[in-house]
Amino acid sequence: MPRIPFDDVQSRLAKVLRELGFRDVRAELCARLFAETTCDGVYSHGVNRFARFVAMVRNGSVDPAAEPRVVVRFGAMERWDGQQGAGNLNAYAAMERTIGLSRVHGIGCVAMANTNHWMRGGTYGWQAADAGVIGMCWSNTMPNVPPWGGVEPAIGNNPLVIAVPRAKGHVVLDMAMSQFSYGALESYRKRGELLPVEGGFDAEGKLTRDPGAIEKSQRLLPMGFWKGSGLAVVLDMVAAMMSLGNATHAIANDPLRETGLSQMFFAMHPEALGDDARMEKIADEVVASLHRSPAAEERRPMRYPGENTLRLRDENRRIGLPVEQAVWDEICRV
Amino acid sequence: MPRIPFDDVQSRLAKVLRELGFRDVRAELCARLFAETTCDGVYSHGVNRFARFVAMVRNGSVDPAAEPRVVVRFGAMERWDGQQGAGNLNAYAAMERTIGLSRVHGIGCVAMANTNHWMRGGTYGWQAADAGVIGMCWSNTMPNVPPWGGVEPAIGNNPLVIAVPRAKGHVVLDMAMSQFSYGALESYRKRGELLPVEGGFDAEGKLTRDPGAIEKSQRLLPMGFWKGSGLAVVLDMVAAMMSLGNATHAIANDPLRETGLSQMFFAMHPEALGDDARMEKIADEVVASLHRSPAAEERRPMRYPGENTLRLRDENRRIGLPVEQAVWDEICRV
Repeated sequence: MPRIPFDDVQSRLAKVLRELGFRDVRAELCARLFAETTCDGVYSHGVNRFARFVAMVRNGSVDPAAEPRVVVRFGAMERWDGQQGAGNLNAYAAMERTIGLSRVHGIGCVAMANTNHWMRGGTYGWQAADAGVIGMCWSNTMPNVPPWGGVEPAIGNNPLVIAVPRAKGHVVLDMAMSQFSYGALESYRKRGELLPVEGGFDAEGKLTRDPGAIEKSQRLLPMGFWKGSGLAVVLDMVAAMMSLGNATHAIANDPLRETGLSQMFFAMHPEALGDDARMEKIADEVVASLHRSPAAEERRPMRYPGENTLRLRDENRRIGLPVEQAVWDEICRV
Repeated sequence: MPRIPFDDVQSRLAKVLRELGFRDVRAELCARLFAETTCDGVYSHGVNRFARFVAMVRNGSVDPAAEPRVVVRFGAMERWDGQQGAGNLNAYAAMERTIGLSRVHGIGCVAMANTNHWMRGGTYGWQAADAGVIGMCWSNTMPNVPPWGGVEPAIGNNPLVIAVPRAKGHVVLDMAMSQFSYGALESYRKRGELLPVEGGFDAEGKLTRDPGAIEKSQRLLPMGFWKGSGLAVVLDMVAAMMSLGNATHAIANDPLRETGLSQMFFAMHPEALGDDARMEKIADEVVASLHRSPAAEERRPMRYPGENTLRLRDENRRIGLPVEQAVWDEICRV
């Protein structure tokens, strides 16, 4: 696969975004967030997703000129309107504001309605951790997973992100509420592999590890069966209520028209409570305890969430971002 | 099974607690929380758990006289020391304080170290929802689940609770990070049933639905495999850091000596942002969309988290709490 230098990717994407109507500084940030996502190894939500993003700007789902605005403030909590702007720029602005609130109040919270797909949720976890705060955020999505006990997509795979800052490498959990994404199912199918664990139901309603059968039935499993299903419902409810935005059932079930999402952002400022050195030590000890726990397979030591990211990030920065030729050609043609 | 009126259960437990050294008002509240847990149908963490609680007071793990105290305050966030007091009284006090913070700041957060098992986590979700706020809390535990990829218990099953107030019935999610608890495995084994889905590994390291095999191997599955494992690590890390308390690896792996836990409490005050009626409507619509989604089995409609609780609560209030004779006899002998 071709390797393209990070800066070339970013400037190419930024050029496209400016032509679509994004102001310079916003085009640069939006492009950087896409490039960083690929750089960090989350290929499904980075450069590979850019063509779809462009299509959504063109079909009016994403407004390139729209910026989020605060609707109401109360102490450490705010409600924002994303005004149908670019999802990653909106989420970045919301987390930035949340971090600021946490520096004043110890904890901050922003609920944002009327936004778009934030691409990689982990982006805003890394953003918080880089700012030295504990970050948490979640988003609802269009209905793309059947609830536990159901047969039709009716809940979102609502990603949940929790990030902890650490000098030796932030801990960043970024997980969706389905056991596998459609992107993951496609990858396994193309490689001719079965899933490592059951990922959904086949046409006969039986649990299966066959990715193609699940793509056909559209019956993905919520992670943890009834647990992920219940968590998806509650995350959706809180985000829609606090932002006065759409809940999953009110969002168009169409990847190219999936707009009007609701999101929650939280930040906790550790320095507010003092004793930073002790906190850092506690985080390091949790990591150490995980690393010294015996592994089932000798060459597969246990990793904390986000542990692989830094290695991939360094490698991709050094040798260039892996971008499929067809994807790059399409971006260059836009 | 004998049915014992709610008030008789509460007053009997309170009497025992007073004899153990709990002040009157604290004995009543502690007893009420145990009775309410059984009344709500969470039998594993209510009256059935009381004898173990008494044993932990007697062996010094729980200090009946200790009350939680604030250590440091910063705006909407506080750090508390549970001083090894009764876990349910500590958690109740922490959530009460968190609710108060949310009324002033829109959102509130309390991190509490040095506390004990809070029994049913959902208790503090119901408490928040009854007060009209969105509540969220989590606790770490002793190491009782192997991390994904591991073979020995090294992470906690760290329960996570999220509660949304609603006039037609609060939505209360209360879930641990293991797919099944040891209590659930025991129930299935005693009934001679297989688990409905794989719940852990057998002695050969194969995934199994046999509850007895998992009890023997002690290799419970994290819910969602790598997902619940990662979430457990991050919840533990945040609670221990913010409270300056123990992380899971530092907690004794012994149900009778499982003390010094760390917990997080959050509350969001919907009225702070106004538009309560719209928020209520949004919550109701999420419930309605779940209820109208077609079910895989006709007679098993989909339910929101907490939906069954009110029915059980009413029934058990009316006809008395189901308490096994042996459990009741033991409590009466204390």
